[in-house]
Amino acid sequence: MSTGVKVTIIGAGSAQFSLGLVKDLCLTESLAGSLVSFMDINPERLEMIHKLATRYAAELGADLRFERTGDRSAALQGADFVINTAYPTGHHYARAMRERTARHGYYYGGVNLGSYYELKLMLDVARDVERICPDAWLIQSGNPVFAGSTLMTRETGIKVCGLCHGHYGYQEIARVIGIPHPERVTWQAPGLNHNIWLTHFIYEGKDAYPLIDEWIETKAEEYWRTHVATRTHDIQMSRGAVHQYRLYGLFPIGDTVRRGGWWYHTDIETKKYWFGEPWGGPDTELARPLFVKNLEDQVAEMARLANDPKAKLVDALGAEKTREQQVPIIDGLVNDHEGYFQVNVPNRGALAGVPDDVVVEVPAIVNKKGIQPLRVEPLPRKIMLECILPEWLEMERDLEAFKTGDRSMLLWDVLQSHQTRSYDQGLAVFEEMLRMPGNEDLADHFRGPRIG
Amino acid sequence: MSTGVKVTIIGAGSAQFSLGLVKDLCLTESLAGSLVSFMDINPERLEMIHKLATRYAAELGADLRFERTGDRSAALQGADFVINTAYPTGHHYARAMRERTARHGYYYGGVNLGSYYELKLMLDVARDVERICPDAWLIQSGNPVFAGSTLMTRETGIKVCGLCHGHYGYQEIARVIGIPHPERVTWQAPGLNHNIWLTHFIYEGKDAYPLIDEWIETKAEEYWRTHVATRTHDIQMSRGAVHQYRLYGLFPIGDTVRRGGWWYHTDIETKKYWFGEPWGGPDTELARPLFVKNLEDQVAEMARLANDPKAKLVDALGAEKTREQQVPIIDGLVNDHEGYFQVNVPNRGALAGVPDDVVVEVPAIVNKKGIQPLRVEPLPRKIMLECILPEWLEMERDLEAFKTGDRSMLLWDVLQSHQTRSYDQGLAVFEEMLRMPGNEDLADHFRGPRIG
Repeated sequence: MSTGVKVTIIGAGSAQFSLGLVKDLCLTESLAGSLVSFMDINPERLEMIHKLATRYAAELGADLRFERTGDRSAALQGADFVINTAYPTGHHYARAMRERTARHGYYYGGVNLGSYYELKLMLDVARDVERICPDAWLIQSGNPVFAGSTLMTRETGIKVCGLCHGHYGYQEIARVIGIPHPERVTWQAPGLNHNIWLTHFIYEGKDAYPLIDEWIETKAEEYWRTHVATRTHDIQMSRGAVHQYRLYGLFPIGDTVRRGGWWYHTDIETKKYWFGEPWGGPDTELARPLFVKNLEDQVAEMARLANDPKAKLVDALGAEKTREQQVPIIDGLVNDHEGYFQVNVPNRGALAGVPDDVVVEVPAIVNKKGIQPLRVEPLPRKIMLECILPEWLEMERDLEAFKTGDRSMLLWDVLQSHQTRSYDQGLAVFEEMLRMPGNEDLADHFRGPRIG
Repeated sequence: MSTGVKVTIIGAGSAQFSLGLVKDLCLTESLAGSLVSFMDINPERLEMIHKLATRYAAELGADLRFERTGDRSAALQGADFVINTAYPTGHHYARAMRERTARHGYYYGGVNLGSYYELKLMLDVARDVERICPDAWLIQSGNPVFAGSTLMTRETGIKVCGLCHGHYGYQEIARVIGIPHPERVTWQAPGLNHNIWLTHFIYEGKDAYPLIDEWIETKAEEYWRTHVATRTHDIQMSRGAVHQYRLYGLFPIGDTVRRGGWWYHTDIETKKYWFGEPWGGPDTELARPLFVKNLEDQVAEMARLANDPKAKLVDALGAEKTREQQVPIIDGLVNDHEGYFQVNVPNRGALAGVPDDVVVEVPAIVNKKGIQPLRVEPLPRKIMLECILPEWLEMERDLEAFKTGDRSMLLWDVLQSHQTRSYDQGLAVFEEMLRMPGNEDLADHFRGPRIG
């Protein structure tokens, strides 16, 4: 017996992501009868995803209905789940910002103005949810998950769960060190989003950290000398990841590896040293154009499929569930099909040493009762003091700046960049970023004290 | 009617400071009959201060007794108050460290290895107090007051109160902006030691902040253009202080001004811009030698006086109370002569947003009941997020490194320096500092994971 629900996807034009959700919904029989509402401000993309979804479901004979709208309020009417994947600024904006900051001597970004547009959109969506479908779960699937989910849960009374892929890095570790059945690994990696640490790594009932240590001792050097990444994000076993492991005693997982100290990120040669060939990780001038091109190629392929009525979508897209958590979590909440997930929810005691109203990334049991985070063991104090709490403070500053519109807090953040060499340089790049076309709303919002 | 107590001074060879205490004791009749125990590991200095104190008290006819010893346990026997002013490393050590780091491209220090020797001595003294005179008040009068007082109160059960002069900066503000009677100012400046902010500044019953604003608007530029400091620490009204005031909305007081963002401290020209002529504040290659020479001149003068039995000490040293708080606090605790002081004590709710077991600098009423901090109003959230909490974390990292002996935490701190340009530079200066003669014990203590 199945239970139809209404799932609204905000930013549904992100075709690859939306189609993944559609696949998972089609392949989850217990959610048959559901209605998927695609919402996006881009009508072409919206039409494309609607066509593809309708045809894909039809090919599989799945009992799903689809609607599309550019009106967010309409999309939210009667929603049981709201999946927000919208990203208001996009790759072109990010590139333009990097080009500007480069003129002031910054390597690959190095400074930014925070996430004003993303936070504003998230808060607008959350407030709409609170007004229109207050019992819905909002599943935040676009960045910044950490700051955004914290903001939304503080400013509204709705239920928010942030999701990210980063934690799958544990599987990459298992695969690279040669564990025969990575799917049999038991693991735990709590922290903050993009800042999670492998506290448990168990294979066939035994601690598997010694296998990591053995790999580092006997195989890592050769791996670093010879490994050539085929994905820009393939850095889970990089020298930089192992260096962080040596510093902290726990392995950093997923996007955690991309961050770490500024010294991993000073220039392209340094990044290649820490994060490998050929791109030095995903956040470089070599990797990013490729990553964006891949996304664009995917969109072009979607468009081609949408415009080719004879194309068989099941052949093109496959008929296997993705590894995304959104639909299984919905299935758990609606149908009590219990599962174990990695979620971002308000802490309230799950991770010791982090305030209750801060969103943490922790494992959770999801079933009809809800999303129930596990109260994990405390992280080592060193990780708390050097990784978790400094980032907590950074997030609090971001939210405080966002809420107060205090311009000098943005400048302060620019000055904190390890790449800023003088006050004048920081002030100059700051003013130039504020003047950039596309930042008018931001400059208008942040009026606070202007410090010369 | 007077009550004699035993006051032990650890590091009593700091002659200027010890003589100040002796003066205040001589001039506080209600403490007549007290015994002052001078303790130092330098016998020449110890003899000198003992001679001077004895003669000074005799000249004034004060009823005080003095003893001297190089044995800390003996000095602590029966002590009611222990004033710790010892500074185990000294100016020569600091200069040698600066010379080493300069070879690696650092301007005026820029990196250091924390306060191992100071913290170790403080903790040793606190443990001795706990063992020998557990009811005594330990008055911590040497740096680092913030980390050291927090460490001692966490690791022992004794009563600790840290003291500092920085808060007198409010008088300097009043004087410079032309308040006719600076002594009539009512003020409050809570925070952490060397990180305090003027929340109240009231003259003749009215908020006097507008007088500061008026001075900034009409007189500051000329002051900055023409003012030439006569003391290396004369920076309370500097451009850097006013810049911090503009950023935060509250005036930074005393040593707070010396700190602030890294951008005030990149080189001598920058420091002169922010902190004025001729030295660019106290922490420069121009100011420090002069400051040290002044101290040495004072010691030489003390030695001359001590060796000249005909010198009249009251003429040479004066017979007015200093503005130090140690003796008035003792008088308040012993004789219920109530007073209002600026103290560093465990927070326990006095300053919102700071954990209870962290030592904060707050006003306190001192009388026979004890040292009773005022629960002050919360500091602005921006100051908490950009000034107070980051420094709290830094202090917690210092203490964690100290307690665990984790070498990589010291390296991490070196890497955090805004002057460090690359991992290799940070590692090289770190290793060289560890190898420096005088750092053998430190290198031995910090064994933790060695990260290459």
